[in-house]
Amino acid sequence: MSTRLRVAVVGATGAVGQQLLSILKERDFPISELVPFASSVSRGKAVLFGDKPIPCRVLEEGCFSGVHIAFFDASDAVSREWVPKAAKDGAWVIDNSASFRMEEDIALLVPEVNGEILEERILNSRARALTERERILTGPNCSTVQMVVALRPLRDRWGLKRVVACTYQSVSGAGSAAMRELAEQTSAALAHRPVQAKAFVHPIPFNCIPQIGGFKSDGYTSEERKIIQESRKLLDLPALRITATAVRVPTFNCHAESLNIELERGFAELEEVRRALGEQPGIVVLDDPAQGVYPMGRPSSGKDSVFVGRLRRDESVENGVNLWVVSDNLRKGAALNAIQIGETLVRSLF
Amino acid sequence: MSTRLRVAVVGATGAVGQQLLSILKERDFPISELVPFASSVSRGKAVLFGDKPIPCRVLEEGCFSGVHIAFFDASDAVSREWVPKAAKDGAWVIDNSASFRMEEDIALLVPEVNGEILEERILNSRARALTERERILTGPNCSTVQMVVALRPLRDRWGLKRVVACTYQSVSGAGSAAMRELAEQTSAALAHRPVQAKAFVHPIPFNCIPQIGGFKSDGYTSEERKIIQESRKLLDLPALRITATAVRVPTFNCHAESLNIELERGFAELEEVRRALGEQPGIVVLDDPAQGVYPMGRPSSGKDSVFVGRLRRDESVENGVNLWVVSDNLRKGAALNAIQIGETLVRSLF
Repeated sequence: MSTRLRVAVVGATGAVGQQLLSILKERDFPISELVPFASSVSRGKAVLFGDKPIPCRVLEEGCFSGVHIAFFDASDAVSREWVPKAAKDGAWVIDNSASFRMEEDIALLVPEVNGEILEERILNSRARALTERERILTGPNCSTVQMVVALRPLRDRWGLKRVVACTYQSVSGAGSAAMRELAEQTSAALAHRPVQAKAFVHPIPFNCIPQIGGFKSDGYTSEERKIIQESRKLLDLPALRITATAVRVPTFNCHAESLNIELERGFAELEEVRRALGEQPGIVVLDDPAQGVYPMGRPSSGKDSVFVGRLRRDESVENGVNLWVVSDNLRKGAALNAIQIGETLVRSLF
Repeated sequence: MSTRLRVAVVGATGAVGQQLLSILKERDFPISELVPFASSVSRGKAVLFGDKPIPCRVLEEGCFSGVHIAFFDASDAVSREWVPKAAKDGAWVIDNSASFRMEEDIALLVPEVNGEILEERILNSRARALTERERILTGPNCSTVQMVVALRPLRDRWGLKRVVACTYQSVSGAGSAAMRELAEQTSAALAHRPVQAKAFVHPIPFNCIPQIGGFKSDGYTSEERKIIQESRKLLDLPALRITATAVRVPTFNCHAESLNIELERGFAELEEVRRALGEQPGIVVLDDPAQGVYPMGRPSSGKDSVFVGRLRRDESVENGVNLWVVSDNLRKGAALNAIQIGETLVRSLF
């Protein structure tokens, strides 16, 4: 890692962008120049990189020239337009939007789950010039990341037959404004003042909203569809039987998920499942419920791991297991996952 | 209903007890004398029945003498000791505790689901003197009530093969003190003051806690076990394949549940399921998601119905359906259900 890199962060003022800057610093990503981009309303606004304020730029033609790695954490529309331009300008792009991740020739990556795809891409890059689309690497939806990390060791050891996922998703997944809305409107609700939802379709204080994203014709939300489709791609199980219900809950950060899993093959003792989960990089098992030890959002905030607990055999089906999975959706669910992809590039290429 | 009755309410100062008093009044239950009981710490404290304050009594031998109907909404321990005494004193007892409901010879009732058991009991009472245990009628756990109301029409029409339930339960299920704890500790958390959990094992503000009740040796909580076992009894399906994950969320009132259901037989159109649910007494279907119409806790509070929405075909399994079910856990989940049992008695017996 002797080379120091020119690194762009698109969406630097957003909730995930801020996490990205902080984790890049904390993990000492080898940066010679950080180039933060924000929308024109933030033009001139400085973001802090460590203790150094750096003024944001706005996207314009040629702005990625000389950039080695560009992280995108902006809207789907911004990624749709600017990710191809960044790749064309020669950058490796790591995009957290939904714009490209489900396209067949685009890599969708969670390093602990399908890192071999990235390794192969890197090998190819040594043998020949990659296409622009080959330099576009994408990260999944936040609620998908923690789920596939938890499912991977079960897939490897016993095979996955079916998954029923119910989520308990924090407001940070909807961005910084949503976090302010939860704080401000909760205060207002406690004082019996009326509130008007902005970041959500309904008021979020003390309320669970069974809608994340828009609705499709089959009644599923875009979030539920992402969970279903992205998991299949990441786990390399295109026909995986999986359904999902995604719910916004009044918590600030960290998503929780209740996973009901049917395995293809049986296990003798639940202890085997606990061990397989515990040996998976990226997972910490927290499962001593009688002592109050199980994953929860508040203590998981700011942590890198996917926390798994409440392991139970599900007697209602053959080879059934129930799990409770919690992770920081801004970190492992987005910023950290992107940086882990970037670190793999750095180790191998720069 | 010309007779006016002597009605006891045990646990009159609690969250459910207060609802009971208010619903008894609102539905004009034919009461000549209301006898509220509370624990000795509330001795002399008056509860309001309509606008009339009535001082609470403490339980003592013979206190149910002359009482026609006794509602119990106190602790399991209080019910364990005093329910048999009330029945012995000649009262019909309607008990919402967990103390007797799973005993084989005790009726567990949700009128819309298995009201025929109550009708038969009433018929028997005309033919012969009932035993004391036959005059003990019980209501299920709050999270069970709304679930079995939603499942009944599906059982009737297509048969139930398997149910996976994940709950999003409000703090009111843990009582009035828990509701105050959510309000006070949320204010404290917003002001960055430390909080100390009392009603829960962990702080509840902005947190989801995957524990309701104590843990059993198989890793399930008492709440999860109640959902599983009571549903089987209420639906008269002793071998129903069902699993549950029960989670406390930071909402004041109304439980929400995500139900994944496999039916025995198939339906051609989802519309048939929507119609079957809509025709079930006690259910209101709220399912126009594109317009933001689906059940939520805040608007369901104070309502009598079980609200069902987010109907989706689950393509991951044959004859699969996903539902989202919300109801006021203090009303239909406890107080109203008990009063509906009482009203059936009144219509037929008094």
